[in-house]
Amino acid sequence: MNAPTNAINWSPTHQARALLLMLTEGGDADVWQRINHEGDIAIVDEVLTGRTKNRFFEKLRKRLPLPTRHLDELIAEQVVTAESTGARLIIPGDAQWPTQLNDLAERAPLGLWVVGTADLRLLALRSVAIVGARAATTYGLMLSRNTAATLADHGWLVVSGGAFGIDAAAHQGALDAGGSTACVLAGGIDVTYPRAHEGLFRAIAGQGLLISEAALGASAQRQRFLTRNRIISALTRSTVVVEAALRSGSRTTAREAEELFRLVMAYPGPVTSSASAGCHELIKSRLAVLVSDAADVLSLLGETEVAPEQIQLSIPAETDAETDVETVVFDQMRERKTATAEGLARDTGFPVDDVVAALGLLELAGLITRNQNRWRFRARHGS
Amino acid sequence: MNAPTNAINWSPTHQARALLLMLTEGGDADVWQRINHEGDIAIVDEVLTGRTKNRFFEKLRKRLPLPTRHLDELIAEQVVTAESTGARLIIPGDAQWPTQLNDLAERAPLGLWVVGTADLRLLALRSVAIVGARAATTYGLMLSRNTAATLADHGWLVVSGGAFGIDAAAHQGALDAGGSTACVLAGGIDVTYPRAHEGLFRAIAGQGLLISEAALGASAQRQRFLTRNRIISALTRSTVVVEAALRSGSRTTAREAEELFRLVMAYPGPVTSSASAGCHELIKSRLAVLVSDAADVLSLLGETEVAPEQIQLSIPAETDAETDVETVVFDQMRERKTATAEGLARDTGFPVDDVVAALGLLELAGLITRNQNRWRFRARHGS
Repeated sequence: MNAPTNAINWSPTHQARALLLMLTEGGDADVWQRINHEGDIAIVDEVLTGRTKNRFFEKLRKRLPLPTRHLDELIAEQVVTAESTGARLIIPGDAQWPTQLNDLAERAPLGLWVVGTADLRLLALRSVAIVGARAATTYGLMLSRNTAATLADHGWLVVSGGAFGIDAAAHQGALDAGGSTACVLAGGIDVTYPRAHEGLFRAIAGQGLLISEAALGASAQRQRFLTRNRIISALTRSTVVVEAALRSGSRTTAREAEELFRLVMAYPGPVTSSASAGCHELIKSRLAVLVSDAADVLSLLGETEVAPEQIQLSIPAETDAETDVETVVFDQMRERKTATAEGLARDTGFPVDDVVAALGLLELAGLITRNQNRWRFRARHGS
Repeated sequence: MNAPTNAINWSPTHQARALLLMLTEGGDADVWQRINHEGDIAIVDEVLTGRTKNRFFEKLRKRLPLPTRHLDELIAEQVVTAESTGARLIIPGDAQWPTQLNDLAERAPLGLWVVGTADLRLLALRSVAIVGARAATTYGLMLSRNTAATLADHGWLVVSGGAFGIDAAAHQGALDAGGSTACVLAGGIDVTYPRAHEGLFRAIAGQGLLISEAALGASAQRQRFLTRNRIISALTRSTVVVEAALRSGSRTTAREAEELFRLVMAYPGPVTSSASAGCHELIKSRLAVLVSDAADVLSLLGETEVAPEQIQLSIPAETDAETDVETVVFDQMRERKTATAEGLARDTGFPVDDVVAALGLLELAGLITRNQNRWRFRARHGS
């Protein structure tokens, strides 16, 4: 059994990385170059001792929250907040790190703060971004909600940005369908922005994941929304733009996705609706392909050929597939179609707690559903 | 000065062709192969004498309207109807023949019956098809009308099929803008189908052209609508699909246009509207590019780079450009911007009747406009 997915790893590198997330902004290639050359710990040491006086280190030093040379003290608040909010820090190399983010190269996040029990890497393997305008129309909200629900229903993680409008409708659609959804925030995952989405974020954390590269407590600044978009694009297999004005953040997300060779899809709308103008522009410029329903989205995701029966759980390389509880439970469920946690524990020999954790993970991945204390393998819909 | 554009040419070949149009259906490659090998007159002779007894000739003989061997008698009714309706027959090789129809190769029409004073070849050089569903929505009708009006306003001939819905709105939009429009009918141009469009067709004949490959008096049969579509596609530079159901004639027109290397454009609409489903399908399958307003259409037609000042009137090769009244009048108008027919006749030395005819042609081509008895060169709109 893997370590509990929500355990906090406070290795020296994680500590140094937590500080660097506080002192830098996302997508800064300079930081990665330094890390690759000198290593996190050496950089933090430079920042704290003040030995090297160059622009790079001065910029980082300016953002130090306390006049101290002790890393422990500097990240004490992050540690406390992480514990109280159930947040964990995942960095490249961790088992839960979604390796597709490495496609961003030197613009990859240094790490991600995550709230929620699911395995980010596992879920993100089968994820789609649904993004769009805050100023959405009823038409757009309906499309966003329905598309998210259908995708969630087919075991796809619906990723969005937690904003008003299309984003919120996407999260809600996935939640309503009993699927999983991830919200990539621009500010710290403990900062509720917009305030009105407090309940939504709580629901997402309970049924999916809150994700952010911003340090805990970091405010949702304008620039961070744009840099945040690259994470949404890179994390997911494909981006669906539901409604977008001509100049919009969704367009950035789409362009970013296209540059990363992710498929971008866009819904058309009436040409008389400015909320669809950005989508039409994406289609015209061949940045996006037109989709007219969730079936189109699934089809472009290759879903017509993949039934849940054929889905292979991706096992991190370092684990032993033969004894991995999730794989064993998945295989059991695939064969039995329905079972209880106790029955599975008895038959597989795994502790019941481990079986329950594995079932939760498979449920979040949309592969099984729960009805009271019975679990059911999910038959494919619509095919 | 050319011969009046509405004169009827009853050469022996035209007479033979008029009969062949009565005895065959459009798009039949066999007929062209026979014509290319044997010539119209020999074929007609075979049909009338009944010498050769093969399936091809028997099929034609079955459709003979009278038990006579005299071509004159067989086409007498066509001649009378042509004179009474002001229709003329144009065949490949005629000065007014739109040579782009030859792109259809052995599916090209044998000839076209035309009503209207304009020069079909000249107008068709700068023509766009606007087609779509009969069961159109208010949204589609508005788009069709507005697009047609803008195109007509920029000197484009708007070609459509005279049907209810999108077609009628396109014709009406061009008429309302004082531009020119051509209606390619499935039945004979003297057959009003649909009946309710009697007034519309009269207006089109007055301000543009009615066109059909069907013999005068031929009914608007189902199959003829499909074969008719190839003429709309081939005649025009580009086809704009405004609204179309998933399976529709507009789709045929679009596919035909695409195969002829004409640019196909389609308007998107709400994905919830079945009237837009065909358009979305065309865009998805890359048969059409998405346009969201008339400016897009103009831009894809290359209109951003071409101002009317730069438009060269295409002069049929057999005329002498130096003494061609239309070219001289066009040049005068371009220079003076505004003039009367009498002033132009005085200064150019052409008879005033010829100048008036040339002005009418230039007006139909959208290059000049009339206000009472003054003519005005058309400044480019929207650029």
